[in-house]
Amino acid sequence: MLQLKNPEIVAKTIEDWIENYFDTYSLKIGIIGLSGGIDSALVATLASKALGPERVKAVLMPYTLEWRPQDVEDAELIAKHLGLEWETFEIKNFADPFEVLGLNEVERGNVIARCRMITLYALANKYGGAVLGTGNKSELMIGYFTKYGDGGTDLLPIGDLYKTEVFQLAKFLKVPEKIIKRKPTAGLWKGQTDEDEIGMSYEVLDEILYNHIELKKSKDDLVKMGFSVEHVEKVLHLIKISEHKRRTPPIPKIH
Amino acid sequence: MLQLKNPEIVAKTIEDWIENYFDTYSLKIGIIGLSGGIDSALVATLASKALGPERVKAVLMPYTLEWRPQDVEDAELIAKHLGLEWETFEIKNFADPFEVLGLNEVERGNVIARCRMITLYALANKYGGAVLGTGNKSELMIGYFTKYGDGGTDLLPIGDLYKTEVFQLAKFLKVPEKIIKRKPTAGLWKGQTDEDEIGMSYEVLDEILYNHIELKKSKDDLVKMGFSVEHVEKVLHLIKISEHKRRTPPIPKIH
Repeated sequence: MLQLKNPEIVAKTIEDWIENYFDTYSLKIGIIGLSGGIDSALVATLASKALGPERVKAVLMPYTLEWRPQDVEDAELIAKHLGLEWETFEIKNFADPFEVLGLNEVERGNVIARCRMITLYALANKYGGAVLGTGNKSELMIGYFTKYGDGGTDLLPIGDLYKTEVFQLAKFLKVPEKIIKRKPTAGLWKGQTDEDEIGMSYEVLDEILYNHIELKKSKDDLVKMGFSVEHVEKVLHLIKISEHKRRTPPIPKIH
Repeated sequence: MLQLKNPEIVAKTIEDWIENYFDTYSLKIGIIGLSGGIDSALVATLASKALGPERVKAVLMPYTLEWRPQDVEDAELIAKHLGLEWETFEIKNFADPFEVLGLNEVERGNVIARCRMITLYALANKYGGAVLGTGNKSELMIGYFTKYGDGGTDLLPIGDLYKTEVFQLAKFLKVPEKIIKRKPTAGLWKGQTDEDEIGMSYEVLDEILYNHIELKKSKDDLVKMGFSVEHVEKVLHLIKISEHKRRTPPIPKIH
C-alpha cells in the first residue's frame, strides 16, 4: 500500500499553498461543499488551518434532508469539529426542474453535481471567495468526477494526493474517526461504493496509478510486477478516456 | 482593423479540425446553443459544413420566450438557414429556483449561463454528442464569459479568432446579413451591448489584443503605437485577472 512518507510536511505544504493562493488573489473566504466524506473533510481541515475557520464557509447540499441522513449528520460533525459556519441547501429543489430533459440515472447524477457547483459559486460570489475543490489524484486521473460539476472549482488542494494518502493525511490531522471509517461513496444510489463502481479497491487502483504516473511504468511493467492484466487495462483505459476532463477545451490554431 | 487574410483556408482548417475531433472520440452529434448572435451562428455554420447538418443539434435557451423575442427569432433563422433540428427551453424554469441564494445581477447572469451548460450537457449525453463552445479569442482573453457556464464546453472551434475576424469569416460563409448586423450583446439586460460593457469597440480591443498576444508588444510599445493608455491598461488588466478562467484548477505539487 502507498505510504505518505511525511504527513507533517505534506500538510504544511498544502496549507502554505492555500494561504498563498488566497493572498495572491485577495480572496476573503474559502467555500467548500461538505459531503460527509473524507475528501471534503480533509480539504476543510487543511483550509481551516491555512486560513482560520472564520474564513472557511461550509455548504451542505444533500439531495434531500431525508435521503441518506447520515451524510448531513457527518458533514455537520466535521463543521462543528472544525468550528465552521455552514449553510444547508436541498439540491433537489435546483435539480428536479431539469427532469424535463428526460434524464437517465447517470445524467441525473451529473445534473446534481452541476447544481452543487452553481450553488457554491453563487455563495463564493456573495462572500468574495473561491471554491475549494475536493478532488483527489485517484479520482482526477480516472475521471471519476463530473466535468464542470464537482470538477468545476477554483483550486484543488488535495489534487496531487492519492486516495490512500488522503486517508493517511486525514488520520494524521485527526479528522474524526467516524469519517475516516466510512466506505467512500459518491452517494449516487443506496449502498453504492466507489470501489464497487471502479471495480477494484483503492489500494490496488492507487498502486497501479502511482507506478504508472510517478514511476513511469508501462502496461507490461505493471503486469510483470504482479497486477492483473484486467485491472491494469481498466486503469489505463480510464486515464485515456477521461483526458478531456483534465484539460481546457481544445482550440484549433489559426494565428 | 484586423484583417482575416484567407477566410477560405481558415474555414477549411476549422472544419477539418472539428471533423477530426468527432472522429477521434467517436462522437455522433455536435450540440450547440444558438443565442441568435454571430458567434454561435458561425460555429453552427462551420460544424454543419464539417459534420453535415443532420449531426448538429441546435438548442435555443432564451430566459423566457417573451424576453428579447428577437433572439429566438434570429436563432430560428440560423437553424432554418442551415437546416438544423432545434429544441427550445426557457431557462427561467431552471434558473429561478436558485434565487433562494439571494442573487445579485451579476450572479443571476452566471446562474443562467451555468443552467444553459447543464442543459447542453444533458442533451449531449442523451444524443452521444459533444458540446460545441462558441467563445472567440477576444472574449476568452479578457474573460468575458462565465467560468463553467458558457465557458464550460468540450471544444472551442473559433477560440483562436478575434471578434472582428468572426465577423469577416461569418460574412465569407454567408451567415444571414441580419445576424451579422446585430450589435453584439450578452443579452444580460435591455439595451446592453458588449462594447459598452467592455468600454471600447471590438475594433480597438482586437487591435490591442492582437498586437500584445500575437506580436508580443508590451504596454509601452502599444502606447507608442497610438492606443490610449486607458484602453491598454484596461485590456492588460482584464487579461491578468481572467487568467484563472483559462486554465484548469491549480494543484500543489506533492509527488
